[in-house]
Amino acid sequence: MDGNDNGRNRRRSGGRAGNAARRGTQLFRQMPWRISQNTDRPTEPLDEEGIAAIHDGAMRILEEIGIEFLNDEALQLFREAGATVTDANVRMGRDWVMEMLARAPSEFSITPRNEARRIDVGGRNLLFGNVSSPPNYFDLSLGRKVSGTRAQCADLLKLSQFFDCIHFVGGYPVEPSDIHPSVRHLDVLHDKLRITDKVVHAYSLGKERVEDVMEMVKLAAGLSEEEFRAQPRMYTNINSTSPLKHDLLMIDGCLRLARRGQAVMVSPFTLAGAMAPVTMAGAVALSIAEALSAIALFQYVAPGCPCVFGTFTSNVDMKSGAPAFGTPEYMRATQMTGQMARFYGLPLRSSGACAANVPDGQAMWETSNSLWAAVQSGTHMVYHAAGWLEGGLVASPEKFVMDCEVIQMIQRYMEPALTATTPDDIALEAIREVGPRGHYFGIDHTQDRYEEAFYQPFASDWRNFEAWQAAGGTWTAERAHGLFRQIVDTFEPPPMAEDRAEALADFVERRTAEGGAPTDF
Amino acid sequence: MDGNDNGRNRRRSGGRAGNAARRGTQLFRQMPWRISQNTDRPTEPLDEEGIAAIHDGAMRILEEIGIEFLNDEALQLFREAGATVTDANVRMGRDWVMEMLARAPSEFSITPRNEARRIDVGGRNLLFGNVSSPPNYFDLSLGRKVSGTRAQCADLLKLSQFFDCIHFVGGYPVEPSDIHPSVRHLDVLHDKLRITDKVVHAYSLGKERVEDVMEMVKLAAGLSEEEFRAQPRMYTNINSTSPLKHDLLMIDGCLRLARRGQAVMVSPFTLAGAMAPVTMAGAVALSIAEALSAIALFQYVAPGCPCVFGTFTSNVDMKSGAPAFGTPEYMRATQMTGQMARFYGLPLRSSGACAANVPDGQAMWETSNSLWAAVQSGTHMVYHAAGWLEGGLVASPEKFVMDCEVIQMIQRYMEPALTATTPDDIALEAIREVGPRGHYFGIDHTQDRYEEAFYQPFASDWRNFEAWQAAGGTWTAERAHGLFRQIVDTFEPPPMAEDRAEALADFVERRTAEGGAPTDF
Repeated sequence: MDGNDNGRNRRRSGGRAGNAARRGTQLFRQMPWRISQNTDRPTEPLDEEGIAAIHDGAMRILEEIGIEFLNDEALQLFREAGATVTDANVRMGRDWVMEMLARAPSEFSITPRNEARRIDVGGRNLLFGNVSSPPNYFDLSLGRKVSGTRAQCADLLKLSQFFDCIHFVGGYPVEPSDIHPSVRHLDVLHDKLRITDKVVHAYSLGKERVEDVMEMVKLAAGLSEEEFRAQPRMYTNINSTSPLKHDLLMIDGCLRLARRGQAVMVSPFTLAGAMAPVTMAGAVALSIAEALSAIALFQYVAPGCPCVFGTFTSNVDMKSGAPAFGTPEYMRATQMTGQMARFYGLPLRSSGACAANVPDGQAMWETSNSLWAAVQSGTHMVYHAAGWLEGGLVASPEKFVMDCEVIQMIQRYMEPALTATTPDDIALEAIREVGPRGHYFGIDHTQDRYEEAFYQPFASDWRNFEAWQAAGGTWTAERAHGLFRQIVDTFEPPPMAEDRAEALADFVERRTAEGGAPTDF
Repeated sequence: MDGNDNGRNRRRSGGRAGNAARRGTQLFRQMPWRISQNTDRPTEPLDEEGIAAIHDGAMRILEEIGIEFLNDEALQLFREAGATVTDANVRMGRDWVMEMLARAPSEFSITPRNEARRIDVGGRNLLFGNVSSPPNYFDLSLGRKVSGTRAQCADLLKLSQFFDCIHFVGGYPVEPSDIHPSVRHLDVLHDKLRITDKVVHAYSLGKERVEDVMEMVKLAAGLSEEEFRAQPRMYTNINSTSPLKHDLLMIDGCLRLARRGQAVMVSPFTLAGAMAPVTMAGAVALSIAEALSAIALFQYVAPGCPCVFGTFTSNVDMKSGAPAFGTPEYMRATQMTGQMARFYGLPLRSSGACAANVPDGQAMWETSNSLWAAVQSGTHMVYHAAGWLEGGLVASPEKFVMDCEVIQMIQRYMEPALTATTPDDIALEAIREVGPRGHYFGIDHTQDRYEEAFYQPFASDWRNFEAWQAAGGTWTAERAHGLFRQIVDTFEPPPMAEDRAEALADFVERRTAEGGAPTDF
């Protein structure tokens, strides 16, 4: 890359049959795959005393109040490690916690079946993932909210694959309620591993699901168990049951992944005023205690295992008690947590979230607030970055397309070319040449740089009102709907070697015949 | 203020008849008037070498290439000051420019007829103004773009007065094409000075207009000429005629204001690839040369006169050549210009701008980008912060209402309470009290803080999908339209002493009878 973001189609004229990603981009220009370097100095609302105060609060929660682990194996491990275990309550000393955290890598990679889609987590890397886990779906052609289906889930996976600004695939982009829960993980992971070639995720919802997904990731990439264990190939994300609890299955899933060298992300959902203190620093301190208690355990069990600290601290609506996202409080909590994550040396995950019910103005100011807070906080993995509505209860393909425009702009914003100050950039000779009466359009300095000089949108319409009106006068969400249809209607899945595809299908068939996973949890 | 932003109506139960602003807020809660302190460290894409490179570029433009001043008085002043004047071209040495800039205050105040609405410009103060100067108007009830009228202009002035987050009133919020240009300034300023009590602006469009507006500002505030001259009471904003030119009337207007102690804002419109180099650093360097050449002149004529450096550097649409706003390039140019403004010790103005034609998702992501770039750049005055569409060619009341929600969130974001870390904020005792099984809703720590703890929106709808749908399922722009109608339909103007109102009306009547201002420019 030379800092020119928009040259994908122009530069890549050749092509390999079956490369759906490139075929897809012929619909419109998108920015090619890249992992942006977040060069902005993080916004730091806390001074050193503030960091120390939140750290001390979190450590006192761990030492004096304790966290409940509803998982016997975890309790046994904590006892063995010298923690004070009383029934399910675990209290642990700050020295031990910090000793365990020191084992966690501040940077690591996750490599999916297409190695060119490896993601580097940590450092200045800025990664974006699709919306995960909404039970419901909305699109403009339906005009209403419905329970998710496998077909809608597959469409959202196609968007996740199509957009090069989406680096990893989270949980199900919508829960497919038309698949029985016992085999849902088999069918959706089968879809996911065929439709995408990016990093995938397993829900920590019971031994069978976690083990099945790990097996499927191995089959899709043609990996031996040894190769799988040698480096992270996938990840899981868990939430604590705030306040102050970790449940059986989530800890179980993480332990299974951590022991096999896979990545785990711990994201307490500390909603200020509901399951966390009404004060943002208190909600952040609680989230830190909850996250670190689990991460310390994983480091005890599997020293050096890749862990991500996930922040999901926001506030409730004072009127309804519903969660609000992209608020000023959310932004500051995210920035504060970013400072704390750097203090602990852990990579950070945050989200692209909103409370809006439809992909309208509110949706985009709330999501813009969330995404810029991710940038300002030094977030490494932005979860739910595309497609989220209604506080995570609705997935929307239009919102997905719109969010990708904002994400691409953030990626473009991070290109060093925008702020370069070489003599060529200062352009004194061009200014001299044009003088006071000319126009810059026609000069060589412009013509040489013009096509790649500026961000080129795909969902924004920059025509004047009259031209926009003559072309139909569509509002953003309508345009996004059209782009969504174009993308999924012309989508071709990325290639997968036939033997791997067969092995994967066989596995799903066999495990389905066996009944999948128990559903009595 | 105690950091609680949402308590206006609750706390202020009494009332003075005729206080329209408060009466208006009974419609819904808005945050009370405040001048936020921008406590975030500015985003600094340039290192010291970058700052030096842009400075040197700007200085070489002034020294080697020169700026055209199509104003004989300015040319005479430059000659007198020792600049090299060749026809209209003026070249000036960097030492002289920097000497003049050193005279400019880095902070100053502007006091309107209501002294409680004084604005402090500079330092960490963050001020927002309404949209200025679009020729056209769009609202949802019309559903189309029309030429502006006096009635629409008055409605937008009512919004500008109603919203406490709007600190100053820019140019006409829409050009009223139903008033003859010769008397337009008289009628609109008459409306503006009656409908609002905030800081107002004069267009630098000829001696008569500038002098008339200064006279009207004096009459509305009951000021003698001496009182008027004693401190800034109003301001003008000019654009250079990029590249490299200042025109007759704009410089004339600024000289008239500067000599009477009023504030001037110089905002080159350097659109990269059109009237400025295609490279952002080049476009910024050009804008600096253009702005500083004028500001140096004003400091020569009126040492210490209040000047603001306005940035209006963006890029064109590569497809249509139309201006684009809220782009990554725009954000970086704004941040870079912020660094340069601090280097020169001048207060900074930027904008809340977008290219979108309607108040939709695109409008809000572009405007969010612009407004956050203002924050990140250390901008002091955010022009066009509410109501702008189509690159400034359309004013929209719905967009105005929507933008005020984003502005309020920025104000709330700046409240120190959000990131406080006292023991009360860390809330260890509350966390202990609730333990692992409770809920924070009912405890004293929450109840004592709950009502004022979080930002409360007026245009966002945070209800869940079902409740939102049951209430009509309106998208943001529709809700904003309803709020706009409520505000203007119940609006009462702020009080003005009868003798001042009469003097103002008499002045307008007399000057109208005299024919107003010439229209042959």
